[in-house]
Amino acid sequence: MWHYLKRLLIGKPLKTTDEGGQALTKFKALALLSSDALSSVAYGTEQILTVLFALSAAATWYTLPAVAIVLVLLFAITMSYRQIIHAYPSGGGAYVVATKNWGTGTGLIAGGSLLVDYMLTVAVSVTSGTEAITSAIPLLRPYSIAISVVIVLFIMTLNLRGMKDSASFLTIPVYTFVIILIGMIGWGTYNILAGKLVYHAAAAVGSTVPGMTMILFLKAFSAGSSSLTGVEAISNAVPNFKKPKRKNAANTLAIMAVLLGTFLTGVTFLSYYLGIMPNSNETVLSQIGSTVFGRGIFYYLLQLATALILAVAANTGFSAFPILAYNLAKDKFMPHMYMDKGDRLAYSNGVISLAVGAIVLIFIFHGKTNLLIPLYAVGVFVPFTLSQSGMIIHWFRERGRNWIINALINLLGTVISLALVIFLFWLHFTNVWPYLIIMPALLFGFYKIHDHYVTVAAQLRLNNEQAKLHDYNGATVIVLVSSVTHVTTGAINYARSIGDYVIAMHVSFDTNPKKEHETAKEFKDSFPDVRFVDLHSSYRSVAGPVLRFCDVIAKNSREKNYSTTVLVPQFVPRKPWQNILHNQTSLRLRAVLNSRENIIVATYSYHLKK
Amino acid sequence: MWHYLKRLLIGKPLKTTDEGGQALTKFKALALLSSDALSSVAYGTEQILTVLFALSAAATWYTLPAVAIVLVLLFAITMSYRQIIHAYPSGGGAYVVATKNWGTGTGLIAGGSLLVDYMLTVAVSVTSGTEAITSAIPLLRPYSIAISVVIVLFIMTLNLRGMKDSASFLTIPVYTFVIILIGMIGWGTYNILAGKLVYHAAAAVGSTVPGMTMILFLKAFSAGSSSLTGVEAISNAVPNFKKPKRKNAANTLAIMAVLLGTFLTGVTFLSYYLGIMPNSNETVLSQIGSTVFGRGIFYYLLQLATALILAVAANTGFSAFPILAYNLAKDKFMPHMYMDKGDRLAYSNGVISLAVGAIVLIFIFHGKTNLLIPLYAVGVFVPFTLSQSGMIIHWFRERGRNWIINALINLLGTVISLALVIFLFWLHFTNVWPYLIIMPALLFGFYKIHDHYVTVAAQLRLNNEQAKLHDYNGATVIVLVSSVTHVTTGAINYARSIGDYVIAMHVSFDTNPKKEHETAKEFKDSFPDVRFVDLHSSYRSVAGPVLRFCDVIAKNSREKNYSTTVLVPQFVPRKPWQNILHNQTSLRLRAVLNSRENIIVATYSYHLKK
Repeated sequence: MWHYLKRLLIGKPLKTTDEGGQALTKFKALALLSSDALSSVAYGTEQILTVLFALSAAATWYTLPAVAIVLVLLFAITMSYRQIIHAYPSGGGAYVVATKNWGTGTGLIAGGSLLVDYMLTVAVSVTSGTEAITSAIPLLRPYSIAISVVIVLFIMTLNLRGMKDSASFLTIPVYTFVIILIGMIGWGTYNILAGKLVYHAAAAVGSTVPGMTMILFLKAFSAGSSSLTGVEAISNAVPNFKKPKRKNAANTLAIMAVLLGTFLTGVTFLSYYLGIMPNSNETVLSQIGSTVFGRGIFYYLLQLATALILAVAANTGFSAFPILAYNLAKDKFMPHMYMDKGDRLAYSNGVISLAVGAIVLIFIFHGKTNLLIPLYAVGVFVPFTLSQSGMIIHWFRERGRNWIINALINLLGTVISLALVIFLFWLHFTNVWPYLIIMPALLFGFYKIHDHYVTVAAQLRLNNEQAKLHDYNGATVIVLVSSVTHVTTGAINYARSIGDYVIAMHVSFDTNPKKEHETAKEFKDSFPDVRFVDLHSSYRSVAGPVLRFCDVIAKNSREKNYSTTVLVPQFVPRKPWQNILHNQTSLRLRAVLNSRENIIVATYSYHLKK
Repeated sequence: MWHYLKRLLIGKPLKTTDEGGQALTKFKALALLSSDALSSVAYGTEQILTVLFALSAAATWYTLPAVAIVLVLLFAITMSYRQIIHAYPSGGGAYVVATKNWGTGTGLIAGGSLLVDYMLTVAVSVTSGTEAITSAIPLLRPYSIAISVVIVLFIMTLNLRGMKDSASFLTIPVYTFVIILIGMIGWGTYNILAGKLVYHAAAAVGSTVPGMTMILFLKAFSAGSSSLTGVEAISNAVPNFKKPKRKNAANTLAIMAVLLGTFLTGVTFLSYYLGIMPNSNETVLSQIGSTVFGRGIFYYLLQLATALILAVAANTGFSAFPILAYNLAKDKFMPHMYMDKGDRLAYSNGVISLAVGAIVLIFIFHGKTNLLIPLYAVGVFVPFTLSQSGMIIHWFRERGRNWIINALINLLGTVISLALVIFLFWLHFTNVWPYLIIMPALLFGFYKIHDHYVTVAAQLRLNNEQAKLHDYNGATVIVLVSSVTHVTTGAINYARSIGDYVIAMHVSFDTNPKKEHETAKEFKDSFPDVRFVDLHSSYRSVAGPVLRFCDVIAKNSREKNYSTTVLVPQFVPRKPWQNILHNQTSLRLRAVLNSRENIIVATYSYHLKK
C-alpha cells in the first residue's frame, strides 16, 4: 500500500546509470534556474514602495531612483557571476568558491547562509505566490497559510521524482509569465502613449517630500535588493547544463539578467505612472494588472502565471539545497544521509529537509512575504559577498590574462553585496536578527559533526594487529522467556543451533507466589532438558534484573572464552498497527542490552499468521 | 541525567509489596474523591445563568427553580450510588456494573464514555481553575491556555509519584475551599440579614419573563446538571478505602452530597440576591466573592482555593482513568501497556495518556470551560444511565431483602440520567455531536484490540507436538560488511563463535568499478580465510539485494538443516545525538530482515570510546 502510493507519487526507481540523461538545455535551464530571479518582480518593487509609503504617498516617486540603482547592481552582479561560471564549472556556488579561496570557516558561513536561504527562497516564493492567488480570489485569503503549505508539499513531491521530469513540466509557467509580463508592460506602455491610461502618480519625480531622508531611501533600496535574489542559481548548477556547460550557463545568465532588468523597469514605471500604492490585501503586481488589463481573462492569467512562476522559483531552492547539502555531507559537515540518492536519483533527504524547513518558516512568519524578505536578502548577500571576494583572491592567485580587470569586476560585486548586508543589518535589524542566532548555531553544528566523523574514522581504522581474528571456544546463548508458547519452542531450537550452552531466563513480578512459579513449571514440563532460570523483580522492571543476570553470564562466558548472545523472541503481528499492542518490553530490553559491548542481541521473530 | 531527573520528579521506586500502605482514610478520600463534585460549584450555577442570561437579565431568576431540581437529582443519584457501593465493593464503576448486568457491549459503551469523560474532567476542571485565576488577576488572561497546560502537566507529575503521596498533599486545598465557601455563604447571609448587602436581583422570583419557554428552562437546567458530575467518583474507588471499605465509602459519599447541596444552594441564592450576571472575563463565583468579601485577602483566598480544588478535581480523573484503563486492558479491550505499573506503583501509561488527551481537548476548545461542559455532561450521564439501569437488573436477579425498594431507587436514578442525556443531545447538540463520532470509534477500537489478543493467544498456545524440540545440524551466519574496520573484526569473531558456516557480504553501488572493488580487496587482504560476497545494486538500495541474497542462503541452509543468522554490525556513538549521523542503513536492514521468519537478526554493537 505504502509502496504503491510511493510509486504513484515518486515514479518508478531509476538506475544509477540513468543519471546522464538528466542534463538541461538552455531553454529548460532558463525555466528551472531563472525563475527565482525573474519571479522577484512579484515582490521586489512592492518592497520598495512599502517602505516609502510608510512615510507618505508622495515619497513613492523615490521608487524610480531606487530601482535604477538596483538595475546597476544587477548588471554588476551578473558580470561577477559570469566569471564564477567560467572559473568554477563544477558548480557548488558560494560554498565551493568561498571554501577554495577563503578557507573552510568562511566557506561554512557561506554554506550555512545558503542552506537557510534556500529554505527562505521556498518560503518567500510560496507565500508570495499565495498572495498572488489571494489577490485574485479574496475569498481564499483566510486559508493562505494552508495554501502555502500545500504548495510546498506539492513541489517536494515533484522533486522526489527527480529533476529532469520536473523541468519539462515547469517550462510552461515560466514562459507564460515571461510572455504575459512582456504583454502587460507593452500593452500598458501603448495605452499610456495612446492616452488611454491616465497619469496618476502621487507626486512628480523630483518633487520635495517632507520627512524624506537618505536613511529612508537606503532602507527602501535595500528592501528592493530582494529583486536580485536568485541571480546566483545558475552559477551553482553549471554541471547540470548540456555541453558546452560553461558557455550555455553564461548565456542563460545573460538572458535572465536582461529579462529581469526589463521586468523591473517596466513594473516600476507602471506602478509609478498609475499611482499604485501598496496594500496588504492585494499585491502591487495585481493592482497594475487589473488597471492595465481590467479584471478579465488577461488579469487572471497574469495572477496564475505569477503564482506558478513563484512555485517554480521555490523549485530552484529544491534543486540547489540538496546539492549543497550533498557537498557539505561529502566534506563531513552534515550527516551522511544527505548523500543518499533516492529511487529517482534525487537526494531525497535534502528535499524533505528543505520542505520541512520552509513549512516551519511559513508558520513562524504567519505566511507573510514582507516579514520574510529582509532575512532572505541577508541570507543571499552574505554568500554573495564571500564568493565575490573569494573570486578576487582567485584572480590574484592565478594572475592569468586580464586578471586585474576580472578582479575589479568581482571587487565591484563584493562592495555592492557587502554594502547591502550592512544596510540590511542596520536598517532592517528587527527582521534580520535571527540570522545572528542561526548562523553561529549552524557553524557549531557543522564543526561538531565534522569532529565526530573524523574521530569515528580514526577509531575504526584497522591496524595489523586488530585485523587478526580471535577464536572463541564456544557460544553461550540466553533465551528470554516471558511465557511458554510456540515462540519459545522456535527460539530455543534456534539457540541450540548456534550455542554450546543455552539458558532460558524468565523474570517474574507477581507477589502471588503460586502464579509466580507457573511459568517455571510450564517450561520445565515442556522442555525438561533446557536450563531455566527464574529471576524475581521487586520493582516490576524487567530491564534491571535481565541486565544484571546477563552481565554475570557474559563474565563467566568470557572466562571460558565463549561469546554471549541474548536472544529476544518477539512476535510480528500481521498488521503494523497491532505492534502497539505488543513488544514494548522487547524493544526496551534490546535497547538496554545493546549498551553492553560483550553481549550480542539477536531477535527471533515469530510471524503471526492471523 | 534522565534518570536523575525522573527520580527527582517521580520519587524513588517502590516495591510491589509496598502497595498495601496506599489505602485512604475518609478524611483523605473526601479530599481526593469529592473534589470533582464539590468543585462543580465553580461552574454549575454559572452554566444555568449563562443560558438564561442569553434571553434577558430578568430570566435569571429561573436559576433558583433549576437549581432546586438539580438538588433533587443530587439526592436521587446519591442514593443510587450508595447502593452501587454496597453491591460492588471491588470498584470499577459504571464499566463493571454495566458489563456485569447488561453485558459486554453496554459495558464498553459505559467504559468508553468514561475514558473520554475523565479527559473532559481534567480539561474542564483545569480550564475552570484557570478562569478562577484569571478572574482574580486579569493580567494573566492572554496566557490562559498555557496556564491550563502547565497545570495538567503538574498534576500528571504528582500522579506518576503514586496516589498516597498525592492525597496527603491534596487535603489542604480541598478543606480550605470547603471552609472558605462555608465562610462566604455564612458571611453573605449574615450581611444580608444585617442589611449590609443590598437586594439587587434583576427580577423577583415568579415575575413573568417575556420569551421564556419550557425548552429554554430545560436547556438551562441540563447545563446546570454539570454540577452533578463527579458524584460517581467515590463508588469507583471503593477498594482504595480503609476497612470497612463499603461503610467508609458510603459515608464519604453522604458527606459529600450534603456539602455539595449546601454550596449549590448558597451560591445560587447569593448570585440571585446580589443580581450577579455571567461575564466572560470574570466567573460568577469570583463576582460573588468580591461582592461579599470585597477585593481583600478573603477574596483572593477564595479564588486561590477555587483554583486549587479544581486542580484536585482534575486529579480525580487521574486516579480513575488509569484504573479503568487497567480494567479494560485486563479484559483485553485496551493495549496491555495500560497494565504496567510504574516505579511508584501508578499505572504510568494511563496517567500519561490522560494528560495528553486533556491537553488536546484544551487546545481544541481553546481552553473555554463553557464549550467543554455539554460534552462532559453527556460523557457523565451516559454511564450513569447504564450503571443505574444495570443495578435494576442486579436487584431483580438477586431478589434479596427490600429488592423492590432498591430497584425503585435505581429506577429513579436511571430515569433522571436518561432524561438528562436526551435533553443534552436535544438542546445542546452543537457542542455534543462529537460524542457520536468518538464513541463508535472507541467501540470499534475496543473490539479490534480484543479480537487481536484472542487470535494471538490461540495461535501461540503450545500443543504437545509443537513442544518437541528440533535439532539443527549447524548454523549459517551472514555478516554484513559496509567497510572494513575494527567493527568487522569483532563481528566476524563473533560470527565464527556461533556459526558453522560464515559468509561476509557487501553491497556496492558505485558506478566507478575501481572503487567498487576496493572494499572486496581490503577485506580479502585482512581476512583471507573468510568467504566474501560482493553484491552490486543498480538502484542504490541496500535492502533489496541483501534480502534476496539472504533468502537464497536461508533456503540452502534449510536444506542442510542449518539455521540462518544475519549479523548486522553497528557502532554505538558515545552521545545519543550522534546516532543521527549513523545507522540509518542498519536500522532499515534490521526492519526488512525481521520480515523473514527463517532468518534471525543479530546486532553486533561496537561502542565508540571517543
